[in-house]
Amino acid sequence: MTEEEGKGNSGKDPGTLKRIKLVVSYEGTNYCGWQVQPNGITIEEVLNRTLSELLGEQIQVIGASRTDAGVHSLGNVAAFDTESRIPPEKICYALNQRLPEDIVVQSSCQVPGNFHPRRCYSEKTYEYRILNRKIPIPTLRRDTYFYYRNLDLLKMQRAAAYLEGEHDFKSFCSVRTSVEDTVRKILSCTVEREAQDKIIIRVTGTGFLYNMVRIIAGTLISVGAGERTPESIGEILEKRDRSQAGPTAPAHGLTMIGIQYRDSDILFL
Amino acid sequence: MTEEEGKGNSGKDPGTLKRIKLVVSYEGTNYCGWQVQPNGITIEEVLNRTLSELLGEQIQVIGASRTDAGVHSLGNVAAFDTESRIPPEKICYALNQRLPEDIVVQSSCQVPGNFHPRRCYSEKTYEYRILNRKIPIPTLRRDTYFYYRNLDLLKMQRAAAYLEGEHDFKSFCSVRTSVEDTVRKILSCTVEREAQDKIIIRVTGTGFLYNMVRIIAGTLISVGAGERTPESIGEILEKRDRSQAGPTAPAHGLTMIGIQYRDSDILFL
Repeated sequence: MTEEEGKGNSGKDPGTLKRIKLVVSYEGTNYCGWQVQPNGITIEEVLNRTLSELLGEQIQVIGASRTDAGVHSLGNVAAFDTESRIPPEKICYALNQRLPEDIVVQSSCQVPGNFHPRRCYSEKTYEYRILNRKIPIPTLRRDTYFYYRNLDLLKMQRAAAYLEGEHDFKSFCSVRTSVEDTVRKILSCTVEREAQDKIIIRVTGTGFLYNMVRIIAGTLISVGAGERTPESIGEILEKRDRSQAGPTAPAHGLTMIGIQYRDSDILFL
Repeated sequence: MTEEEGKGNSGKDPGTLKRIKLVVSYEGTNYCGWQVQPNGITIEEVLNRTLSELLGEQIQVIGASRTDAGVHSLGNVAAFDTESRIPPEKICYALNQRLPEDIVVQSSCQVPGNFHPRRCYSEKTYEYRILNRKIPIPTLRRDTYFYYRNLDLLKMQRAAAYLEGEHDFKSFCSVRTSVEDTVRKILSCTVEREAQDKIIIRVTGTGFLYNMVRIIAGTLISVGAGERTPESIGEILEKRDRSQAGPTAPAHGLTMIGIQYRDSDILFL
């Protein structure tokens, strides 16, 4: 299975092909993001190479969330087709033996042949982690964005509430993309304090635009720092203009938490 | 100030010397522990070199907890003497500009000339972090010990209670040390679950033997896994024999959390 109509399956027998779904966790620090690209190593590339070696056939995965360079994951999803007779549930263990320690497959299972990580209905959850104190903590530097100025949690929570529901998120989409329909649905957007000095923004939605969660995080931080009011979020949405929202928060604070698929949609696509 | 009677102060004017206390956090992954040694870079060495460059005089710190290779810290304490006119509270900011990103000084302040990080009465707190699930998580691999088998939290908590109080901890001391008095006082030893799959052992005491917290962690893990009973801890203590306790848990799960000194003891030593 490749991005489009299975051109990577050339030479494989459709009768014995199984579609496998992987749940993939990684620390993004040392990768140029998910998607294969010419100028650096990516998660997708390492998975393709390691799966191909393990299964003895050419494998090309399709990822659900094509995370940016530096973004981490607990539960990204990838799928591929294979003729292998290794029991699907065992593939993850064999794979983890060969993967580098910053990529770990949490589970593997067979799914119906019409399952597609991006085209099937799904609810994706992301977390943006902020360390809000005067001096950084070394052990948190790779997956938590250090922010010096004091953040007002209540204001951030009030601002987050404006983002929930179906909206045109054009103001929260990188201009480096040409997507036309910028309406998306955020099922929940919460801001919580963890321990004394960590603030966690958690966003669940049915689809996200390019850089959307990082722009949401940057805008909520800007509200928390007192640069904007919580109420301004409504206006920012209305204006449909990227320059109205806050900055794109750094990639390393973002973690793809997990993806829920509705089994019924997969079976009857 | 050096380990003994200030032999490192040669050439410094006692009249203008200030003793400075640092609170030092670090990720221990890339260091051969705290203490200067010939075969690898250490936290102490990096602090000595960076402070000497910053202050323009030969500086030698004394550390409170000489942590092993791979052990992390949020609040280890170091002290040194200086003739510098930089305001003591500002030293940490200037120092952090020059330190590598895996060592960060949380604070600096002047203390009385008789303050000694190890000789003054103190209460030290350590945490041992365990990730208890079937498959590891990449972002946690440096500061959390991954343990596959299911751990019984209640049993670990009952076992931990036996360790509180004043005991002869010879069974919980590495044999690679020649210390004679092995009686120590544990003020508290708790075991808590964090999120779903993390178990945190937290130990506070007025003094610790070599590898003591890691042997405590290894023994509590062994109880949690059902290899020993919680009640066996009493017998292990009584036998005063290292081979009776569990294994020394890996260094990277351990973090030096912080050290409390009693100001009155520092002033009237």
